[in-house]
Amino acid sequence: MNGYQHLYIPGPTNVPEPVRQAMNIPMEDMRAPDFGDFVTGILTDLKKAYRMESGRVFVFPSSGTGAWESAIQNTLNAGDKVLMSRFGQFSLLWVDMAERLGLDVELCEVEWGKGVPVEDYKAKLAADDKHEIKAVFCTQNETATGVTSDIAAVRAAMDEVGHPAMLFVDGVSSIASIEFEMDKWGVDLAVSGSQKGFMLPAGLGLLGVSEKALEANKAVSNAGMSRCYFSFEDMIKLNDTGYFPYTPATQLLRGLRCSLDLMLEAGMESIWARHKRLAEGVRAAVDAWDGCELVARGPEWHSDTVSAIYAPEGVDARDVISGAYYKYQTSLGTGLNKLMGKAFRIGHLGSLNPVMLCGAISAAEMALIDAGAKITPGSGVAAAQEHYRATTPSGA
Amino acid sequence: MNGYQHLYIPGPTNVPEPVRQAMNIPMEDMRAPDFGDFVTGILTDLKKAYRMESGRVFVFPSSGTGAWESAIQNTLNAGDKVLMSRFGQFSLLWVDMAERLGLDVELCEVEWGKGVPVEDYKAKLAADDKHEIKAVFCTQNETATGVTSDIAAVRAAMDEVGHPAMLFVDGVSSIASIEFEMDKWGVDLAVSGSQKGFMLPAGLGLLGVSEKALEANKAVSNAGMSRCYFSFEDMIKLNDTGYFPYTPATQLLRGLRCSLDLMLEAGMESIWARHKRLAEGVRAAVDAWDGCELVARGPEWHSDTVSAIYAPEGVDARDVISGAYYKYQTSLGTGLNKLMGKAFRIGHLGSLNPVMLCGAISAAEMALIDAGAKITPGSGVAAAQEHYRATTPSGA
Amino acid sequence: MNGYQHLYIPGPTNVPEPVRQAMNIPMEDMRAPDFGDFVTGILTDLKKAYRMESGRVFVFPSSGTGAWESAIQNTLNAGDKVLMSRFGQFSLLWVDMAERLGLDVELCEVEWGKGVPVEDYKAKLAADDKHEIKAVFCTQNETATGVTSDIAAVRAAMDEVGHPAMLFVDGVSSIASIEFEMDKWGVDLAVSGSQKGFMLPAGLGLLGVSEKALEANKAVSNAGMSRCYFSFEDMIKLNDTGYFPYTPATQLLRGLRCSLDLMLEAGMESIWARHKRLAEGVRAAVDAWDGCELVARGPEWHSDTVSAIYAPEGVDARDVISGAYYKYQTSLGTGLNKLMGKAFRIGHLGSLNPVMLCGAISAAEMALIDAGAKITPGSGVAAAQEHYRATTPSGA
Amino acid sequence: MNGYQHLYIPGPTNVPEPVRQAMNIPMEDMRAPDFGDFVTGILTDLKKAYRMESGRVFVFPSSGTGAWESAIQNTLNAGDKVLMSRFGQFSLLWVDMAERLGLDVELCEVEWGKGVPVEDYKAKLAADDKHEIKAVFCTQNETATGVTSDIAAVRAAMDEVGHPAMLFVDGVSSIASIEFEMDKWGVDLAVSGSQKGFMLPAGLGLLGVSEKALEANKAVSNAGMSRCYFSFEDMIKLNDTGYFPYTPATQLLRGLRCSLDLMLEAGMESIWARHKRLAEGVRAAVDAWDGCELVARGPEWHSDTVSAIYAPEGVDARDVISGAYYKYQTSLGTGLNKLMGKAFRIGHLGSLNPVMLCGAISAAEMALIDAGAKITPGSGVAAAQEHYRATTPSGA
Repeated sequence: MNGYQHLYIPGPTNVPEPVRQAMNIPMEDMRAPDFGDFVTGILTDLKKAYRMESGRVFVFPSSGTGAWESAIQNTLNAGDKVLMSRFGQFSLLWVDMAERLGLDVELCEVEWGKGVPVEDYKAKLAADDKHEIKAVFCTQNETATGVTSDIAAVRAAMDEVGHPAMLFVDGVSSIASIEFEMDKWGVDLAVSGSQKGFMLPAGLGLLGVSEKALEANKAVSNAGMSRCYFSFEDMIKLNDTGYFPYTPATQLLRGLRCSLDLMLEAGMESIWARHKRLAEGVRAAVDAWDGCELVARGPEWHSDTVSAIYAPEGVDARDVISGAYYKYQTSLGTGLNKLMGKAFRIGHLGSLNPVMLCGAISAAEMALIDAGAKITPGSGVAAAQEHYRATTPSGA
Repeated sequence: MNGYQHLYIPGPTNVPEPVRQAMNIPMEDMRAPDFGDFVTGILTDLKKAYRMESGRVFVFPSSGTGAWESAIQNTLNAGDKVLMSRFGQFSLLWVDMAERLGLDVELCEVEWGKGVPVEDYKAKLAADDKHEIKAVFCTQNETATGVTSDIAAVRAAMDEVGHPAMLFVDGVSSIASIEFEMDKWGVDLAVSGSQKGFMLPAGLGLLGVSEKALEANKAVSNAGMSRCYFSFEDMIKLNDTGYFPYTPATQLLRGLRCSLDLMLEAGMESIWARHKRLAEGVRAAVDAWDGCELVARGPEWHSDTVSAIYAPEGVDARDVISGAYYKYQTSLGTGLNKLMGKAFRIGHLGSLNPVMLCGAISAAEMALIDAGAKITPGSGVAAAQEHYRATTPSGA
Repeated sequence: MNGYQHLYIPGPTNVPEPVRQAMNIPMEDMRAPDFGDFVTGILTDLKKAYRMESGRVFVFPSSGTGAWESAIQNTLNAGDKVLMSRFGQFSLLWVDMAERLGLDVELCEVEWGKGVPVEDYKAKLAADDKHEIKAVFCTQNETATGVTSDIAAVRAAMDEVGHPAMLFVDGVSSIASIEFEMDKWGVDLAVSGSQKGFMLPAGLGLLGVSEKALEANKAVSNAGMSRCYFSFEDMIKLNDTGYFPYTPATQLLRGLRCSLDLMLEAGMESIWARHKRLAEGVRAAVDAWDGCELVARGPEWHSDTVSAIYAPEGVDARDVISGAYYKYQTSLGTGLNKLMGKAFRIGHLGSLNPVMLCGAISAAEMALIDAGAKITPGSGVAAAQEHYRATTPSGA
Repeated sequence: MNGYQHLYIPGPTNVPEPVRQAMNIPMEDMRAPDFGDFVTGILTDLKKAYRMESGRVFVFPSSGTGAWESAIQNTLNAGDKVLMSRFGQFSLLWVDMAERLGLDVELCEVEWGKGVPVEDYKAKLAADDKHEIKAVFCTQNETATGVTSDIAAVRAAMDEVGHPAMLFVDGVSSIASIEFEMDKWGVDLAVSGSQKGFMLPAGLGLLGVSEKALEANKAVSNAGMSRCYFSFEDMIKLNDTGYFPYTPATQLLRGLRCSLDLMLEAGMESIWARHKRLAEGVRAAVDAWDGCELVARGPEWHSDTVSAIYAPEGVDARDVISGAYYKYQTSLGTGLNKLMGKAFRIGHLGSLNPVMLCGAISAAEMALIDAGAKITPGSGVAAAQEHYRATTPSGA
């Protein structure tokens, strides 16, 4: 009765009303004779969102973490060498998974606030003349720090040194929000999840797989890297007719059908542009807040889906988050791992608009001041408003 | 996909999620043996929201306008003299209805921006020593101008001069939001609708009726004031067992059950206090906007459910409203009748909270500046934030 | 948790899933600049469902009873003579309303189980050489008895005797289910409601009005027949631009948009044919039940939207209804007025299919036997099945 | 518009309306400070549904197949010997998974139509004096054949021969529908999924884990049995405070909260009894159909959640299923693997009642006759009706 809860975390994101309607359904038979056509339509359109023409997209009933695991289990052997970098909680967890699944991780540690170290990657790849590195891992958007990496540059580096490794991309908080080009960038495995740019509840792990990765899948043995639930093979056997090896999450698939319709009608470029416009308004607000600054260490790293923001000296970011939640009914993202207490995050991806973000910025502003920050009331919103006034298309 | 639409009109208001859930139902049998108990529970609890212990509440499948008509048709005869005042589009429409239904209206014209003229009423009632005035009409909250009148004072005036007329109150945009006391204030007919403080879709006309008005109903002839759909008699015959003379809007009744549960759990006083807190923030914003001012001609008239705001000199309020809608996906209230082009309105009743209103104020602010207003960006939000920071209970 | 409730009353009817989805929405601004187009689209398409090209359709926030009242108040003067017939609870109530609203009713009493007495009407109209009868009222489908009258025949009779009266039709439980032709049959006022063939919750009163009736509206005085809420004039002033004189039930309008889409895509003829097929299955079941028979006194009166069924001698129909509800979670229609205890009803209109009706018939069958009927278990379902097997198109 | 689709497959099952309402929500923050309490409440109540007091329940965003995999990966080493039996598509798939994950499967082949061979198991366990068998696998309810096995008897057999192996149970289509007693039967790993007895959409894999299995988990190495997504360790680290190692499916958790409330209020024994009553009605129908018979080879194997039914000689069961779907809008279960074309299935678990099943039986009956079966129309429904009349409590 006290109004809506406000959700500005970097996923799950706000679900558009048509998607919510589309999921308000009775259950259905996932072996119905016409269910297959429904599924193949989704798989076809998912490829458009991923910007790929060949290869496949798999949809697992799982979180994005499951799709991470699937990518590894199906294309690499235990003991394989991979090149990874770590600069935030999610790149950290992916490294952790790779090690637990038995990969030999060549790791680049990077200051939190920066992203994939393209030059280091290039150097290591150039040095790997035996091509022992089987895969290069990149977290396109590190959700913990609000840092976006340059995947096209990684591809260029790989090409320049002529390295044949596969390119793995964690696109959980970037695909369908920030520019992503599966084919153009030569990405081999691209992980995403339903609850970010796809604007759905959590529950679907999405995985784009190139032809090259599908070939790799045929070559890997199962030794030391057992898989079944997340195996490509079982999916491939049934997906072409539109069915699944086990019961799919039909309710989410109905939602996905609707969100894909919305997305493809708008066009991916338009979605990327909108995220950029909205993110710039948030960054304008952060700039206006005395003592606050982005965790991202420079404009080249700025994420258009989430901003991680250092609270001013002497202000515990946990108080900001807790105040926003309990007093202003607003969920902001927490500071994860070493950012705990130091930073809070504003998620600005998915179905959003300027007025929503003015609300989010207001909530953060009030909670910051309540927590002791010496910022000028309204300063952030004012800056964001000016940006939105200047950039919002009328009629959108 | 571009985020939520923002609704800040003075009704329909934002529906709380539990109410929305409660209306997401299959149809049901309004003659089912247990439906009666469901209805009598609602009628009982509606009386609590109206603050009445005797008398009855009727629930019509109609808008509030239908309840206006029902109040008149059932308790007055054509030709009866009534005392009314006109100071905005809705008090104007009620006068129009009264005249069309054949009442002899003694009318007090009042400057728009003020409300029920208690002293004038008192003088006219005192002068009416033959008690020809059968009913005194008051628009508690004039939705067009954002003006709240003092019903308790009207009652006191009536008592002071010892006038036996019935007291009619249009509480469409006040009951369940602003203090309203049916019994304590001796109100005889109190009109409301589902789509305001009751936080439901439009479709239910609500009418509180005192014992005295029920007696009047028995006395009136039908001559010249035919009624059937809105007749008390048909309702009374069936309501006590929980049924209706025709098919009720069962979906809305399920929603009403939920909203009453929310309201009575919170307590009416708490709801009134919340509306006051939220409204004060909006008024702080208006104060901060150079060149804007409330239509209400002084604090004693300030409405806690809607603020009608004059746009600055030279700014067409229609541009503000249109810009807010098309560019910022925000519905503000239009300026009605003589306020068209001069004023816009922010509805702040129903299920709301500070962050929602910071969004609404931001939308208005941006649209004002786009339309040519020379106001400082963020000035309104800043003022509102300071108010909300100071007055919002943590954990609410 | 114990499965779905089953609803087989003659309204409210089962809401199709897409319509339910379409009503699962946040509130919206009924004065938004693009709301008008939405409304005019609905009004245009409603005319298609009514099969009319000229004239108007009004949509009131009310039940169908309100549309009854509107039809009378707007086109007749108090004291006007009208021709009516009474053969069930709803035709009875319409007569009651006409009398209370001051009409001079020339009444044909008809045995319950039959419908509009065309020959009597013709005789009375022929005898009315001064054309004092201003309107001829017909209940196309008497919901209480399951009797459908022949409106085309009434029109033919009127034409044959050259009588200029207006033709009023209560189509609440027929329009959008049973053949109805506003223009072809020369109907002047045709009443319906949202909760029957239109497959929505209750809450909208629908009224089709011919050009002739619109002319009559201009001519009637308001004397003795006051109206405001249901006045044509107020609606006409705003409807052409797509707005309303008071807050419309926007949620239901969104549902109506969806149900009209479904209906017009299928085609009205196809809807009428489906209702006929489904009804015949129910009648086959009744035929198979020893001791049961239809209230309708012959095939020419059979209603395709509701069957009223006499319980066998010695069986109290209330026990059937109560048993169906409490033991089998199934709502059947009660026997109204003089049919109470003697008959129960199966509503078979709206969104239905053979398997639903096999369930409904099973529920009735079990409840009948529980209540003491000596019918062969499964006999009714068997008969219905055979009919449905023979007539159901595959793929529909 | 043509009525509801009818769903009588053995999962996904029909979702109760309150559960559907509970899932009609905006997204929420799975790291909110009060989210943890919500989750721990669910985990606590899930244990009640599983009938366990010690141990843990894990909730994975996955299908039940994921929970199968988790059970194996976390408690067994590659190369471990396990005892399994195969008598239908799902027991077959579990064996397949076990082998692919590197277990050494001692397999009992059983005629399809029978279940876990308790005596064979006992003999093999008795012979295993070195206790090389680490786990005994039982499919409590083989969904493909409609066969329920006696888990208590397996436990008794294990105890009698004093074998210390863990007891794994696939309870996907039995838990929360058919009697299941985690503690009493000494079950160590019990797999289920959201879309069966829990009456939710697919998307949650549920896994009950005994203390003994938790100890086993600590002992297993990761060698050759890598896990990360489905690892117990990550869950244990966070579950006690009510959080998860990755984004949980919050919408389904809200639904689960509601379905657990419904279940625990009714009582598990009452749920089991209801499933038995409903199943017996279906079996009575099958008995009445000439030429049809259950796949289950005797009453001791009858499943109360699904009946697999051989179509009569000369009738292709695929035609029955296809006809039911396209002509009667009814989903029946297909014949899987070697039952394809020979059998169809009626799922009768979850939220159901007699009238729904009379509809399902009618659909099957009509589709059978259409497909060439020489059965008496209505014979099955009649038999079911008699059973339901005799056994359905009034008021339930």
